[in-house]
Amino acid sequence: MAGLRTELETLLEGVRLGEIEPAHALELLAELPYRDLGFARVDVHRELRQGAPEAVLGEGKTPAQVAAIVTALLEGGAGSVLVTRASDERARAVWVARSLPEIRGIVVMVSAGTSDGPVLHEARIRAMLLGVEVVVHEDCGVAGLHRLAAVLPDLARADCVVVVAGMDAALASVVGGLVACPVIGVPTSVGYGSADGGRTALNAMLCSCAAGLAVVGIDDGFGAGTIAARIARASGTPA
Amino acid sequence: MAGLRTELETLLEGVRLGEIEPAHALELLAELPYRDLGFARVDVHRELRQGAPEAVLGEGKTPAQVAAIVTALLEGGAGSVLVTRASDERARAVWVARSLPEIRGIVVMVSAGTSDGPVLHEARIRAMLLGVEVVVHEDCGVAGLHRLAAVLPDLARADCVVVVAGMDAALASVVGGLVACPVIGVPTSVGYGSADGGRTALNAMLCSCAAGLAVVGIDDGFGAGTIAARIARASGTPA
Amino acid sequence: MAGLRTELETLLEGVRLGEIEPAHALELLAELPYRDLGFARVDVHRELRQGAPEAVLGEGKTPAQVAAIVTALLEGGAGSVLVTRASDERARAVWVARSLPEIRGIVVMVSAGTSDGPVLHEARIRAMLLGVEVVVHEDCGVAGLHRLAAVLPDLARADCVVVVAGMDAALASVVGGLVACPVIGVPTSVGYGSADGGRTALNAMLCSCAAGLAVVGIDDGFGAGTIAARIARASGTPA
Amino acid sequence: MAGLRTELETLLEGVRLGEIEPAHALELLAELPYRDLGFARVDVHRELRQGAPEAVLGEGKTPAQVAAIVTALLEGGAGSVLVTRASDERARAVWVARSLPEIRGIVVMVSAGTSDGPVLHEARIRAMLLGVEVVVHEDCGVAGLHRLAAVLPDLARADCVVVVAGMDAALASVVGGLVACPVIGVPTSVGYGSADGGRTALNAMLCSCAAGLAVVGIDDGFGAGTIAARIARASGTPA
Amino acid sequence: MAGLRTELETLLEGVRLGEIEPAHALELLAELPYRDLGFARVDVHRELRQGAPEAVLGEGKTPAQVAAIVTALLEGGAGSVLVTRASDERARAVWVARSLPEIRGIVVMVSAGTSDGPVLHEARIRAMLLGVEVVVHEDCGVAGLHRLAAVLPDLARADCVVVVAGMDAALASVVGGLVACPVIGVPTSVGYGSADGGRTALNAMLCSCAAGLAVVGIDDGFGAGTIAARIARASGTPA
Amino acid sequence: MAGLRTELETLLEGVRLGEIEPAHALELLAELPYRDLGFARVDVHRELRQGAPEAVLGEGKTPAQVAAIVTALLEGGAGSVLVTRASDERARAVWVARSLPEIRGIVVMVSAGTSDGPVLHEARIRAMLLGVEVVVHEDCGVAGLHRLAAVLPDLARADCVVVVAGMDAALASVVGGLVACPVIGVPTSVGYGSADGGRTALNAMLCSCAAGLAVVGIDDGFGAGTIAARIARASGTPA
Amino acid sequence: MAGLRTELETLLEGVRLGEIEPAHALELLAELPYRDLGFARVDVHRELRQGAPEAVLGEGKTPAQVAAIVTALLEGGAGSVLVTRASDERARAVWVARSLPEIRGIVVMVSAGTSDGPVLHEARIRAMLLGVEVVVHEDCGVAGLHRLAAVLPDLARADCVVVVAGMDAALASVVGGLVACPVIGVPTSVGYGSADGGRTALNAMLCSCAAGLAVVGIDDGFGAGTIAARIARASGTPA
Amino acid sequence: MAGLRTELETLLEGVRLGEIEPAHALELLAELPYRDLGFARVDVHRELRQGAPEAVLGEGKTPAQVAAIVTALLEGGAGSVLVTRASDERARAVWVARSLPEIRGIVVMVSAGTSDGPVLHEARIRAMLLGVEVVVHEDCGVAGLHRLAAVLPDLARADCVVVVAGMDAALASVVGGLVACPVIGVPTSVGYGSADGGRTALNAMLCSCAAGLAVVGIDDGFGAGTIAARIARASGTPA
Repeated sequence: MAGLRTELETLLEGVRLGEIEPAHALELLAELPYRDLGFARVDVHRELRQGAPEAVLGEGKTPAQVAAIVTALLEGGAGSVLVTRASDERARAVWVARSLPEIRGIVVMVSAGTSDGPVLHEARIRAMLLGVEVVVHEDCGVAGLHRLAAVLPDLARADCVVVVAGMDAALASVVGGLVACPVIGVPTSVGYGSADGGRTALNAMLCSCAAGLAVVGIDDGFGAGTIAARIARASGTPA
Repeated sequence: MAGLRTELETLLEGVRLGEIEPAHALELLAELPYRDLGFARVDVHRELRQGAPEAVLGEGKTPAQVAAIVTALLEGGAGSVLVTRASDERARAVWVARSLPEIRGIVVMVSAGTSDGPVLHEARIRAMLLGVEVVVHEDCGVAGLHRLAAVLPDLARADCVVVVAGMDAALASVVGGLVACPVIGVPTSVGYGSADGGRTALNAMLCSCAAGLAVVGIDDGFGAGTIAARIARASGTPA
Repeated sequence: MAGLRTELETLLEGVRLGEIEPAHALELLAELPYRDLGFARVDVHRELRQGAPEAVLGEGKTPAQVAAIVTALLEGGAGSVLVTRASDERARAVWVARSLPEIRGIVVMVSAGTSDGPVLHEARIRAMLLGVEVVVHEDCGVAGLHRLAAVLPDLARADCVVVVAGMDAALASVVGGLVACPVIGVPTSVGYGSADGGRTALNAMLCSCAAGLAVVGIDDGFGAGTIAARIARASGTPA
Repeated sequence: MAGLRTELETLLEGVRLGEIEPAHALELLAELPYRDLGFARVDVHRELRQGAPEAVLGEGKTPAQVAAIVTALLEGGAGSVLVTRASDERARAVWVARSLPEIRGIVVMVSAGTSDGPVLHEARIRAMLLGVEVVVHEDCGVAGLHRLAAVLPDLARADCVVVVAGMDAALASVVGGLVACPVIGVPTSVGYGSADGGRTALNAMLCSCAAGLAVVGIDDGFGAGTIAARIARASGTPA
Repeated sequence: MAGLRTELETLLEGVRLGEIEPAHALELLAELPYRDLGFARVDVHRELRQGAPEAVLGEGKTPAQVAAIVTALLEGGAGSVLVTRASDERARAVWVARSLPEIRGIVVMVSAGTSDGPVLHEARIRAMLLGVEVVVHEDCGVAGLHRLAAVLPDLARADCVVVVAGMDAALASVVGGLVACPVIGVPTSVGYGSADGGRTALNAMLCSCAAGLAVVGIDDGFGAGTIAARIARASGTPA
Repeated sequence: MAGLRTELETLLEGVRLGEIEPAHALELLAELPYRDLGFARVDVHRELRQGAPEAVLGEGKTPAQVAAIVTALLEGGAGSVLVTRASDERARAVWVARSLPEIRGIVVMVSAGTSDGPVLHEARIRAMLLGVEVVVHEDCGVAGLHRLAAVLPDLARADCVVVVAGMDAALASVVGGLVACPVIGVPTSVGYGSADGGRTALNAMLCSCAAGLAVVGIDDGFGAGTIAARIARASGTPA
Repeated sequence: MAGLRTELETLLEGVRLGEIEPAHALELLAELPYRDLGFARVDVHRELRQGAPEAVLGEGKTPAQVAAIVTALLEGGAGSVLVTRASDERARAVWVARSLPEIRGIVVMVSAGTSDGPVLHEARIRAMLLGVEVVVHEDCGVAGLHRLAAVLPDLARADCVVVVAGMDAALASVVGGLVACPVIGVPTSVGYGSADGGRTALNAMLCSCAAGLAVVGIDDGFGAGTIAARIARASGTPA
Repeated sequence: MAGLRTELETLLEGVRLGEIEPAHALELLAELPYRDLGFARVDVHRELRQGAPEAVLGEGKTPAQVAAIVTALLEGGAGSVLVTRASDERARAVWVARSLPEIRGIVVMVSAGTSDGPVLHEARIRAMLLGVEVVVHEDCGVAGLHRLAAVLPDLARADCVVVVAGMDAALASVVGGLVACPVIGVPTSVGYGSADGGRTALNAMLCSCAAGLAVVGIDDGFGAGTIAARIARASGTPA
């Protein structure tokens, strides 16, 4: 925000001082903040503007297109680039990291079952690249509440908790009722039949009576990692 | 079952003995087990045949139609008659009981919230009329797990547990993970938006990973009371 | 239930006697009842606690993960282990049985069509491992009511009936109207177009007017076998 | 069909004979077969063209609009006019009959429950106005198969059977499996929750495995009466 | 119908005469009308009872199961056997015909587009096996109304019309407005996006304002062929 | 578009000339083009910027809020103001017109049935206020194709056609196949059951095979009137 | 329109002059405007009648069928033929162009992301074949509003704008709020989970509060190209 | 969290010291943290445990039930009590505040339209009771991007932004692309037709490509206020 506003003010100031022609200012406004690859307009300044390294959704793009975008971002000075929905299904995220932000704040991520793993790990990598400590606990489903007990000490020190769960997603409500920090739910498309490709988990999370819970899209580990890291970094202390 | 088979055998035996003409047997088969009110064919023998008193769905019938059906059932010798979906919303079930079966077995019914009350009570009345002890605990939602703790001793002695819950219905999974007896889930239409008129609760219960859980239709306290009572009576000891 | 409560009481008693430090008690509570494989927390005590051998959902797990979990369960003393949704489509369930419970109670399972076979057999194996006698009748759809007639004697002696049916699932209503014991419906994803992946069968079963019917998720033979066996064992006599 | 073709041939013949100017022929084609009331184009010739008296959907029209349309139809010579979805809920159909076709063929109409009454009666009135004998049996749901037994003799002499049923609509499959004549299913919006406003009944009928069954829209007694009467009149003998 | 009733009366008469023991009569009722292959109960008498040769849904069955069922039907005396949903996609129906009924009545089948072909041909084969003359017109979509004009003479002589159409299915309404005989609509799953796998076509047909139209399930050429042939045979004259 | 760009250029020019302080320019940009009523930010310049008079959606606003917004718009110099979804159901649109644009171009609006009237009239009023000639033909459903014939001459001279239709919306495909100008479809929520509140009509229009057809939201006469008028004004000749 | 009317008038005039027999006129009407390939009725006159070259939907047709149809169209004199949904996924459209109309009017097409490319290009090719200048801007999503800035000058000179966007389709609302010409939205099936195969984008566009926006079906670049070209050609000036 | 853990440790310590009997400890655990009103179990300690004052969902409860619960909470020492979904539709939230937490952090709330007001205000009141500064901007829809300009300075200083929007919810994506702090989206049920009761807005927000956005349920201002306040308080500085 600050970045965008600053650019705008700088531009206007340049115009006021006569250093920039108004017509040229319009051109600058239109051309500056991205690189045009024809099939893509790469936003090389987002890292500066929003404090988050650019990421590339691999799905629906050819490998050559992905490679060209990643190259443009690295040439634009990106500290790291994350490619999500890359082809190998169980490790769908691929990333390059040249420099990472100083770690600040703790995100605890819990999943209901082993099958939620790929989504949880996408969230984990995204949050890690944004500069937070990530603590992971897998397979904590509520059908055996005692399995959740070992997680309590970590939940107690979290700045933000991410719950990854499919099917009935009951874990989100149970965790949401136990902690006082913000909770981000990630519904997953695990399961068959009435799981309905993750819609049941999504709707169940959305009408959970646990306060302090917000939700991202089905299987959207990337989105969960992003907001969880922002929350944790803002409220957490440096490691 | 036994009843239907017996009637059929009796009829065939009468035919064999020459006491009943085949043509007449067909008529008897067609006419015997119900009373035809024109707009309704009242099944006055179901109580004998299935061990369950007849019940009347009030919705979609005029008061006069309901009254005529109830009268026919009582004249047919029904021990009790239950009218569901009667007009007053908070006490939708109305019933007449002349004689109840001896009590046998225990059903424990828990609800997630106060608003699930009407459905829970429909289940309670139905089960009571079928001859079981019913123990009720309302407002035990998982957002405060400690509220469920007081219910544990009763859960431990249940022959069947009924869980009445709307929205994310997480209570069904949590209870289903704690008990070893059969659990019947009743999704309710409580809530707005993503609760989707009870569909979210229904789907969440259907894909719960808790074993030993089966589900009836949305808001169908009547159905839950019926099957829970059958389970408890078969496995329970007389009071 | 009893198991969980007993452990808790034992722990508290140990604390009272000064044998266990409170801080250590918390650790025990968190660590005792499962084995942590990293990607999975294996619940090795469920068999004791709920009387049901552990089962493993194969879907969404690698073969290596499944093997590791099965090994952990057997090392934990499991009498049998059932893996559902294993890869071969027509015999999706795989199991190991070292010791089975004494047989008690009868479950009758009927299917509407030949294509419902895999789901019916998943239910059959699950119930068998839990210790009940299972009687199976396939292809009894209502379009030829006479095909159901031969099943009547077995229906009459069942402690619980399981109806496996897709498409319009009319068989559930017809069977539900004939028997006095609890009926568990399993909607299947058989059929195309308006069968809607099993949703039509599911909804049809849920709004059946047959009393005493409850339903599990689409194609969930495992869940049906579990609750049917629990019902039959509680009410049935030893074989 | 024949009517429309005849008009077109007559018009062309008139043009060939020089009796009608081509430009005028176009005008005639555009103006002839209806009366324009501004808000409605009343098709006063449909009775001649298709052998079915015009009907008026009351829903979404003001009483004045309905009255104007009915008047136009009667002035156009209609033998009868049927207004569906008129305001009084339990007798939604209103009709005027000046002359009815000679009766030909038999339609048997069965409903699953008392609440299906209004839809059944809309079908009955429509079929009656089209000139068939209609035999009605209400409340024949499959949960008590014996209630269907009395209907068997009438089913045996039907030229077409109409099954009116909501919720799981199992009656359609059962009846469809018993008869050899065409069966028209009418799903109704009776019931709550999983009945889903009639969609469950509709889908169940559509994927019934009973051969010889086709379906009209939810609650569309009018449509069922129309096609059933056409089928019965074509195949039936005069009364 | 007649068949079933006759068997029942014969059985009762035998019992009355002392020729059949009641207990044996029950056995006969249960065992007579099908052959039990274990995985299937083959209804070898349906052809006699309902006038329609048996058909086998290939989907969800192994080739060996299909072969066994076909063999049983032919051994049971079937005049023809139709296997639908066999593996080759563009000619999904396979059939064996030893003797066909005498042809009686005319069914005209029109499709909206070339892609509707496989469904139309399934309907055509089914109707042909049932003994009607079938006239086919493909690719008559309403976007070019003139393409429908050539079909008018055939529509005029039809005893029943089948309209096969996907996407918006407007052809069903247009044809339904032109003819006076019964019309059977078959929605197809042709198209992408908003065609929604045929649901749009299905719903559009169901709320068509054309009178005399009833609908079968999505892509259910078999069902359409069955009811259309029944209608045409009942009303048509021998060829 | 031009307007927005001009304002921006003017502002930058003022800054360049030193007439406007950059900080003040930002304030101007933020404050200029609307009036803040607290609960609403009234866009008083849209008429200049987009050539369309402002309109107010009455639904969800109190009468006082609507009145305040209309007043603000008139004080801002609006030539006309249209309030849609006002309370009286059959004439839902209310409007004030002080000056209307010169008429240019012809829009022909046809509806399938009388019940589509309110939506058609909302479209008509909107288009009229935008300055086009509007020709209306109601009740032209395809079940009587001849009713459409009279409309042909008007369709032939249209610059844009609007088709208002509910249920199966077949009229859109038929009209779309006849004309060469752009067609805008408006699905309506007319009908019950499978009409599904207008979704069937919407989906049917979206997968119509008629080229040159685009669609607005269900019952959105306002949107249809807007785009139709824009199309017609751009291509039409002055009246 | 004009074309169809002219043919009809010519035919009637021929009949009036005695040059054409009425019976023969009917045959001509039925046979003239298409070629019957058996599986397809090829509309060789549409180009004359509607000013749009014929196009062929490849999906659901065999290559041989497509080839035969294209040949028939070219033999019928088509200036160009476009085959959509051909097999290669990233360039799904294939076309033959012998003569193109004179260019007239400008369509600007913008997409939200790189993955929307194939749909955008289908629209581009279709519009180009219809004779308009097409200007394309890809990857202008609103998450970086500045990327849209460079497009403003082109938007300002458009006769029609096409917005191609999946997921939340916010670009359609933003563009719709900026321009004064008609906007055609094309929702795409890009994305996973809550994108719901394009339904979310479709619904979002349909309830956009931007005036002057109409929508085609999901991924229907062909339809968008068609209506956009019609709008632009009618309002635009020759190049 | 800390609270729950502390109570448990205190209890165990008391047991260790012999001050509390184990059996009594179990009773304490079950009875302590709520008051049982029969129809409700009031959680009087949640304020201590989670730092959030208790709130009561008015929907589905009688006024007497609401009053009893509020009284219990105040008697339990609550600093404030918020009742949501109270009867008056435009000011659905009612609250009592005796003491509020010290203000810490800033939440900026923007809505797309005036009709989103009630939901926005529920969020505002909830956040205010939790102790944050709330800045509100209503009616900032993207169809007039300039209306959003005035909000930029406030967005720049926010610790968390809440976007309240119905229909296409494009505002969430636009705002999400401008700010670097966490954004909470609240889809609203404003609008008709394709708005689909808020589902379109919900899905659009869930598949927004703006990073750092999470979503609560439809119309759930309460949930948004809760999580936004938690985020802002953790990261913000005291006022």
